[in-house]
Amino acid sequence: MATENLNLVPFVSVENMMDLVLETGIDHSLAELAQYIEEDFLRWENFDKTPRVASHSAEGVIELMPTSDGRLYGFKYVNGHPKNTRSGRQTVTAFGVLAEVESGYPLLLSEMTILTALRTAATSAVAARYLARPDSTTMALIGNGAQSEFQARAFKALLGIDTLRLYDLDPSATERCRRNLSGLGLDIMACGSPEEAVEGADIITTATADKQCATILTDNMVGPGVHINAVGGDCPGKTELHRDILLRSDIFVEYPPQTRIEGEIQQLAVDHPVTELWRVMSGELEGRRSEAQITLFDSVGFATEDFSALRYVRDKLAGSRHFIELDLLADPDEPRDLYGMLLRRQVVLDHQHTA
Amino acid sequence: MATENLNLVPFVSVENMMDLVLETGIDHSLAELAQYIEEDFLRWENFDKTPRVASHSAEGVIELMPTSDGRLYGFKYVNGHPKNTRSGRQTVTAFGVLAEVESGYPLLLSEMTILTALRTAATSAVAARYLARPDSTTMALIGNGAQSEFQARAFKALLGIDTLRLYDLDPSATERCRRNLSGLGLDIMACGSPEEAVEGADIITTATADKQCATILTDNMVGPGVHINAVGGDCPGKTELHRDILLRSDIFVEYPPQTRIEGEIQQLAVDHPVTELWRVMSGELEGRRSEAQITLFDSVGFATEDFSALRYVRDKLAGSRHFIELDLLADPDEPRDLYGMLLRRQVVLDHQHTA
Repeated sequence: MATENLNLVPFVSVENMMDLVLETGIDHSLAELAQYIEEDFLRWENFDKTPRVASHSAEGVIELMPTSDGRLYGFKYVNGHPKNTRSGRQTVTAFGVLAEVESGYPLLLSEMTILTALRTAATSAVAARYLARPDSTTMALIGNGAQSEFQARAFKALLGIDTLRLYDLDPSATERCRRNLSGLGLDIMACGSPEEAVEGADIITTATADKQCATILTDNMVGPGVHINAVGGDCPGKTELHRDILLRSDIFVEYPPQTRIEGEIQQLAVDHPVTELWRVMSGELEGRRSEAQITLFDSVGFATEDFSALRYVRDKLAGSRHFIELDLLADPDEPRDLYGMLLRRQVVLDHQHTA
Repeated sequence: MATENLNLVPFVSVENMMDLVLETGIDHSLAELAQYIEEDFLRWENFDKTPRVASHSAEGVIELMPTSDGRLYGFKYVNGHPKNTRSGRQTVTAFGVLAEVESGYPLLLSEMTILTALRTAATSAVAARYLARPDSTTMALIGNGAQSEFQARAFKALLGIDTLRLYDLDPSATERCRRNLSGLGLDIMACGSPEEAVEGADIITTATADKQCATILTDNMVGPGVHINAVGGDCPGKTELHRDILLRSDIFVEYPPQTRIEGEIQQLAVDHPVTELWRVMSGELEGRRSEAQITLFDSVGFATEDFSALRYVRDKLAGSRHFIELDLLADPDEPRDLYGMLLRRQVVLDHQHTA
């Protein structure tokens, strides 16, 4: 038994995650990750789904997001604390675990701050492939925080977006986003207002971070044919779009019970019609039906997407050196003899002491 | 910012947990842990409590157990897979995280297989101090698996139990338990039946592991004045005591909404009267009222106990070398510049490559 090293669980640190992604290439990582996400959306009914378990405080929220496909189990720990940037901390940090359902043993522990940024962007791009006009080339990107460059990269890699129109309340955020995205062949405009940013945009991505209801987009800003990718509104009391836009849009969501609590549609009646994204992917329901239709992906981030991301990282680790092994699980020589393991450790320590 | 090492989270491996416990001494660790558990029971109303989030499968269960006191947040991942021993694995393994509510940042990642064994035993002993007869010296220990020696140690350390009467369906488990507990000054009897084990016992501890309803104790086996410490029945469909015993006992529980689903009292009506342990500890309600009363601690294990255990470990780490630091959290120089961190890592890698 001991030779199997049942106690060890692979751990992917932040640095190893960066190295894994950079070795693969950011565009290629996003494309591969999108494939895992799409695969899991296409077997949506296999998943044990539950709204995330949230612990709210005045400063923010800590959430656990579990799901399982019956063979693998995954969960993510994620926080959301808008004031964290004041102390040099991230608004959102995350880590997660993938485990084997048959034994309950963890298979992987991974940082998920970077991984969540990648999977959120990849999910947005996957949704847009079904919902945006196929000839889309220009994206407005409103909110130029930590998620913005990942969205830009994913839409470039997966949809061929070549023009970005950036806006943030904080011009230095826009400038940083523009600088970070330079040299990729993107045509980038820094805009002075949300109104200017949406001019001529085929896709509008909103990714602002305040924990409050804001109206980033008003009704008159959204013309026919636009696809709105609403990423920032993702908890109770936090929305980005004016309600009138929602009433003119066909709304697509990940998991309705969670989105009705956390998404833009918390502004609507609980029975307002929405379409589950997986049903569009499977071909059961239509996504975009016309040139003029306004489509809205009311994205809040769902546990299956993190599951897909963990599954992706685990597969990437095969043959990779970008992880270490943690002595996370007790592995006594005889399974029922946990206490005996402690006694045997005492013998080792006594020996070290006298040696 | 970088000098604060905001990315690093202390990690206590299985080996480090053993060394921490052995350095402190097992008895002393149990006593200290009991104090933390009792402290948190005494401020029960401060905690955000919720039944654990369970993912059941044919083979077992994976659970997440979160709680918070408004200042700290903790959760435990724990599995329960009875068939695991066939492949040399533990029935129960666990790990957990303590985090700061204000920032959502994890403060500690720890193995919790050993820690759960310790906290379960410490909780049982804390409860027994309020519920068992003060002159108790003899404990029957039915089910001699991984939890059994920890129970014995805790009852010896915290209540002065000096005589053990062991029984297990598997005589080799009893023999191992007896051998592991030798040399501690305990008077230990290996018994051939549960009936023999309970003879003259002041306290009966049941800690069997099968995931099914079993009747370890029948009604005629429980005499007046006994305290029953029922540890093994801890999920839906898994009980250890005959229903008639429950009807004759005063029943004490951790968190009624969870115990009614998972504990022995799942056999009773949903409004059967039970007493919350914390109300006894606080002096609001009586524990043992008479010599003849039968008391039952229907223990299922609650999230606050894991929270107490994580809080204890975190305090023990101050000035200790029994941990390593994990690069778990992304810590960009500028908090909103997560993508920029990836770009800067690319520069480092390019440099390493050409160097």
